[in-house]
Amino acid sequence: MSQPLKVALAGLGTVGGGVVKLLDENRELIERRAGRAIEVVAVTARDRTRDRGLDLNRFAWVDDAATLAAAHDVDVVVELIGGSDGPALTLARETLAAGKPFVTANKAMIAHHGLELAGLAEQRGVALKYEAAVAGGIPVIKGLREGAAANEIAQVFGILNGTCNYILTEMEEKGSDFADVLAEAQRLGYAEADPSFDIDGVDAAHKLAILASLAFGTAVDFKNVAITGIRHVIAADIKEAAALGFRIRLVGQGEANTKGLFQRVHPCLVPLSHPLAHVSGSLNAVVAHGNFVGRLFFQGRGAGEGPTASAVVADLIDIARGETGPAFAMPVAALSRAEPASADDRRGRVYLRFTVADRPGVLAEIAAAMRDAGVSIESLIQRGAAADGNVLIAIVTHVAPEKSVTQALERLEGSQSLVASPMLMHILEE
Amino acid sequence: MSQPLKVALAGLGTVGGGVVKLLDENRELIERRAGRAIEVVAVTARDRTRDRGLDLNRFAWVDDAATLAAAHDVDVVVELIGGSDGPALTLARETLAAGKPFVTANKAMIAHHGLELAGLAEQRGVALKYEAAVAGGIPVIKGLREGAAANEIAQVFGILNGTCNYILTEMEEKGSDFADVLAEAQRLGYAEADPSFDIDGVDAAHKLAILASLAFGTAVDFKNVAITGIRHVIAADIKEAAALGFRIRLVGQGEANTKGLFQRVHPCLVPLSHPLAHVSGSLNAVVAHGNFVGRLFFQGRGAGEGPTASAVVADLIDIARGETGPAFAMPVAALSRAEPASADDRRGRVYLRFTVADRPGVLAEIAAAMRDAGVSIESLIQRGAAADGNVLIAIVTHVAPEKSVTQALERLEGSQSLVASPMLMHILEE
Repeated sequence: MSQPLKVALAGLGTVGGGVVKLLDENRELIERRAGRAIEVVAVTARDRTRDRGLDLNRFAWVDDAATLAAAHDVDVVVELIGGSDGPALTLARETLAAGKPFVTANKAMIAHHGLELAGLAEQRGVALKYEAAVAGGIPVIKGLREGAAANEIAQVFGILNGTCNYILTEMEEKGSDFADVLAEAQRLGYAEADPSFDIDGVDAAHKLAILASLAFGTAVDFKNVAITGIRHVIAADIKEAAALGFRIRLVGQGEANTKGLFQRVHPCLVPLSHPLAHVSGSLNAVVAHGNFVGRLFFQGRGAGEGPTASAVVADLIDIARGETGPAFAMPVAALSRAEPASADDRRGRVYLRFTVADRPGVLAEIAAAMRDAGVSIESLIQRGAAADGNVLIAIVTHVAPEKSVTQALERLEGSQSLVASPMLMHILEE
Repeated sequence: MSQPLKVALAGLGTVGGGVVKLLDENRELIERRAGRAIEVVAVTARDRTRDRGLDLNRFAWVDDAATLAAAHDVDVVVELIGGSDGPALTLARETLAAGKPFVTANKAMIAHHGLELAGLAEQRGVALKYEAAVAGGIPVIKGLREGAAANEIAQVFGILNGTCNYILTEMEEKGSDFADVLAEAQRLGYAEADPSFDIDGVDAAHKLAILASLAFGTAVDFKNVAITGIRHVIAADIKEAAALGFRIRLVGQGEANTKGLFQRVHPCLVPLSHPLAHVSGSLNAVVAHGNFVGRLFFQGRGAGEGPTASAVVADLIDIARGETGPAFAMPVAALSRAEPASADDRRGRVYLRFTVADRPGVLAEIAAAMRDAGVSIESLIQRGAAADGNVLIAIVTHVAPEKSVTQALERLEGSQSLVASPMLMHILEE
């Protein structure tokens, strides 16, 4: 049996604790699978004294994370601190520069600095691995990087944020409003005190940018992800979508074609016939379409102690086995620099929700705006006035240029008939 | 850029042709991802003159497959001949003995001779890879071998035969009988002229035995898979199952616990809340439960030219990248030799269908037999007599020892009330 793989662990929050527990509990099995033991030898965290329910005395304690790679007899560093910059990034640079492999669950850092770090890893011939950064325990980085590697992939879609999916599913099942479900999710610990990274779609966008790079062989391009969160989805949207045969999901959508790289995170109407419609609660899922393999679908738990630790340790096992290669499936220099594709060239069906005053001529005004922009209506639901006297009109259009839909909404801007901003959501087609 | 990876291809049927097409069509992309070109240099097949719509003149032709590894400047051999023994096995042994990596889509050979071949590969320090052998294009070998490697896996389930799933789905959607759907599937080329390997569950059992080894770290043990096919599923079973909230799927089920290794392929009633219930048509899917990751679910196309070629070439890319290790995730000597677990120790709910004569006392006789065996009834559907005068009784039991259900059926053996053998199907719980 070879020497143990000696691990330094930076960050002892939920996931860090999970990694320690997993390596303890599955020790014998992991040694058989990895061909050698995997042992934590050194740790660092913000607060040494906090009770984590873990015996840390067996590990060397380091106060300055940045020294972790150099200070001890360490083969590989695992970073679970978080944050796109700051100590996590310093540690990544120091570790790779020291010629040691680096494992992280940090999507923000990989989305912002992944190419720089991959380049560093390449120069030093060591691994940069980040399976836990996207979709938690689902091996989707591996699935795209290796499993689907033979394919030209045209599209990748994902439900990448468990908090949003939990909120949307709860709204669906209970008919509740967004704010109530969010408050309840915060109370239960499913949503952060400051939930904006999740509910405004930024976390999903980090993950999408990483998936898109792997799927399309393009450089990670987080800044060109168009992001819309779920704050403006109301209970009535979910109800009307259901009446029309859809569920609402926050979808990260990546497409590569001759027009460039299109990346968008947004709440979508997903038809019940699509597998993403059945991804409920805090689950995550990813769909990729390859030119030979067809549609692949991966689903599992996208966050939490156990699933994230599972992904981190899978990376460590790969490193122990010597199965490592370029972080983004190919050398950084081989990644193409795709132009961002404009949404203006896109066509599709959309859902529109108008909150209007209950008086004559309103529907005619909306219908005229859509006609003048060349957008035709597939379905429309108007229900009687609510308690506040306002009327909700939900529309699904036929396939139309996105630009035309924008024009229709521009025609209605400033209209006295609309008592609130209209809501637009795209429909994910099969 | 490194030297190309030179591939010899044995077998030019649907999948072999697909591999040639894929390597042509995605050539540039594969070279970027693999870090080097992957080139077919030599081929062999039964009939040199058959028109396959491929230009074979650019490849060296070899008449005797067994000489393929030695005869040319070949880095890796891909076997797509099929059959558990014969030329495929000879080629595998010759290739590995020559110290060259070997890639195959041959589930029968891996189920029967996988350990011997993995041992040979280990001795020579080369890769034996077989992603295409299970679930076609879905990277489930990789998903278990690497993606879920940190987990102790207690259960693995799969819909592993596209022909059976197609037949069951068609029966479900059209209300047709098994024989009619099978005949139509044969006409369309979805089922073989001799369909027994598929519909009697042998093909699924080959795949299950391989998955179980990877999931549990046990030696492949095909001979202890209990196998029941779908021949005896009738349209009424599907109808009554639906009325009770289930769909019928041929499920390969593996479980490892202190009682040993339990492996069974059988038509099951799957509750609609389970993801396997939504796997339709010729799709395949695999579910694994890990102690840290929770439930993972993989779905995609399990057969056909494109998906199978995708998996074969994924293996070649791994080899080109140098990312290879033990075929069954650990050295053969590290695999445990689990005792087969008896079904007698198992408990669960079952579906029973009785075809009975339409006369007084029949239901009492069945109910008494079940009571005497200690099996209690959860739901029962009896419909009025069919055109043939017989009556169908469909029962779902409460959780009971499988042994007790067997006893109940034994008590009814030889009963004049039953006009056909009863049908028993297990219920897959969430």
